[in-house]
Amino acid sequence: MLQSGEALEGFQLAYETYGVLNTSKSNAILIFHALSGSSHVYRYKSEVGGWWDQMVGPGKPFDPSKYYIICVNILGSCYGSTGPSSINPKTDKPYCLEFPLITVHDIIKSIKLLIDDLGIKKVLSVTGGSLGGFQALEWAVNYPNITQSVIPIATASYATPFNIAFNEVQRQAIYSDPNWDNGNYYTGEPPNVGLRLARQIGHITYLSEDSMKEKFGRDLRYNPEYIFQFKEEFEVESYLQYKGTSFTKRFDANSYLYLTKTIDYFDLKKDQNLVKTFSGVKNVKFLVISFSSDWLYPTTQSREIVYALKSNGIETSFVEIKTHYGHDSFLVDCKDLREIVFSFLENLKI
Amino acid sequence: MLQSGEALEGFQLAYETYGVLNTSKSNAILIFHALSGSSHVYRYKSEVGGWWDQMVGPGKPFDPSKYYIICVNILGSCYGSTGPSSINPKTDKPYCLEFPLITVHDIIKSIKLLIDDLGIKKVLSVTGGSLGGFQALEWAVNYPNITQSVIPIATASYATPFNIAFNEVQRQAIYSDPNWDNGNYYTGEPPNVGLRLARQIGHITYLSEDSMKEKFGRDLRYNPEYIFQFKEEFEVESYLQYKGTSFTKRFDANSYLYLTKTIDYFDLKKDQNLVKTFSGVKNVKFLVISFSSDWLYPTTQSREIVYALKSNGIETSFVEIKTHYGHDSFLVDCKDLREIVFSFLENLKI
Repeated sequence: MLQSGEALEGFQLAYETYGVLNTSKSNAILIFHALSGSSHVYRYKSEVGGWWDQMVGPGKPFDPSKYYIICVNILGSCYGSTGPSSINPKTDKPYCLEFPLITVHDIIKSIKLLIDDLGIKKVLSVTGGSLGGFQALEWAVNYPNITQSVIPIATASYATPFNIAFNEVQRQAIYSDPNWDNGNYYTGEPPNVGLRLARQIGHITYLSEDSMKEKFGRDLRYNPEYIFQFKEEFEVESYLQYKGTSFTKRFDANSYLYLTKTIDYFDLKKDQNLVKTFSGVKNVKFLVISFSSDWLYPTTQSREIVYALKSNGIETSFVEIKTHYGHDSFLVDCKDLREIVFSFLENLKI
Repeated sequence: MLQSGEALEGFQLAYETYGVLNTSKSNAILIFHALSGSSHVYRYKSEVGGWWDQMVGPGKPFDPSKYYIICVNILGSCYGSTGPSSINPKTDKPYCLEFPLITVHDIIKSIKLLIDDLGIKKVLSVTGGSLGGFQALEWAVNYPNITQSVIPIATASYATPFNIAFNEVQRQAIYSDPNWDNGNYYTGEPPNVGLRLARQIGHITYLSEDSMKEKFGRDLRYNPEYIFQFKEEFEVESYLQYKGTSFTKRFDANSYLYLTKTIDYFDLKKDQNLVKTFSGVKNVKFLVISFSSDWLYPTTQSREIVYALKSNGIETSFVEIKTHYGHDSFLVDCKDLREIVFSFLENLKI
């Protein structure tokens, strides 16, 4: 039963694990992925890089030789877990928009079933950036007694109207593509023009003004002069085209719609004070991390979380890491992030 | 002859003036408009409000009883001056994309012809916000000897890659609309879906996170619960729809493409230090104004201008006004802005 009141009769979760669950089953760490992520958090022996290789691996904070690392593709996504592109058992056709809308609460409920199935009674830590951080926070509030620590990164306790506005224009980009056809495109051409534009808009919000200045400045593709035409002539424009186009090769437009709505619905404080939200959380340690250049989920939002946690007497460390890379900072190579998370985990009792 | 190397054989400029040019022709003030503005800067006796009524009028800084106020619709726009929707005399059809691309330098050159025609030997002040500020700065650099003062507001000395990126995704929204038809839509349906989305994206960049929180929060249209559907359910979403839709009723999509490119091309420092750009400016007073919540043309960009001006010994005042309204602050009711500009103008010698 989902938060929307609709039921999902049977679903599949794709997940990957790294390392070995110890005999006391006390070394499990749940890593939650963000909007466009998958369960493939770590390269390991695969030819395909993981989305958090800089944080997972030998000598990294999430070291499979010490911890049992679990990463689950979230409901509504398109990397193996049930979503709008999956076959609806009732019709034997893809769900398309018949798929129900999913909230962060639904996601963590589904992942909890997996944790139970694995026989894990308490997780050592739950973590994630962005939408992954939403899940970490929602998990902590719902399952405080089976959680030893939480590491929310570059995230917030609710989607602001600013976040919602950016998500909505991205959805509008997909809706506007005639190929979208109200979600019924799986037998025809996918709405790649719309999805590409959506991702381009999104991508701008993941960067920072400084990183863009550093990376592109006002560099031209056709040096040294303006071409005075309506095509990409600045490097930043062709970079966005490249990013948008490559995204269409790996992501489903309907999943993009569903997961941006999942973000919009997230509101841990709904109708109450955030301090009250965390009132049931006892004996859980928090490490809250934000990035100075992140304007999508700025430090002010992490501070709100820290304030609510501290007000409940919850053991909380908070770090704002100085970076240039905007919201994407949690995904890029960041020594500070590695060191801070590493030592936090080292100090937990397994 | 335009900066692109193309020639525009004859063009029209729509302009409005308020007040009376004094006998010594020393009380003229040029107000430059921004992306979606027109020459209708002041309501006066019209039924239609002007875009800067809070700054122009009796008792306001730009008082027609004291000054001769001129506002010119810029080349490439769609409010009376020649642009892509105008008739190309060579073909007797709208220019569409045959219209040449226009730079800020082209715009101020065209306006200089008007000033000459009006017999004005020196303007008391030039001012504008955003793209209007680009024009004020470009004017000052090109015509320092006929300019007594300059008031650049919420602006910058060049478009950053961040600005270009946001403009490019707005253009992509228009390109993506099948009705756009490579600009040849004047005899058919205009690309209103694309233009609406472009404006929605743009509009987000004109606001601030704080003003959106204050104005909309997470308010729902269909209170009190989520509807779990793919339509606007948050107030901020329907606000954006409204803003986008009403814009399509008053603006031309091709003009939107041209003027966003005009913004992208703007770079006062091109291949040199900004300090050098202003080296020919003597005996001109500057009042540079930025807004604390403006993240599209943030205060850091105004500071770069101020640094370059001061380095040349140019008399410069700089104010960052604390507001919530983001980039749009220069357009909304703002007492501080009025008072600061008022007293600056009062101290000029007519």
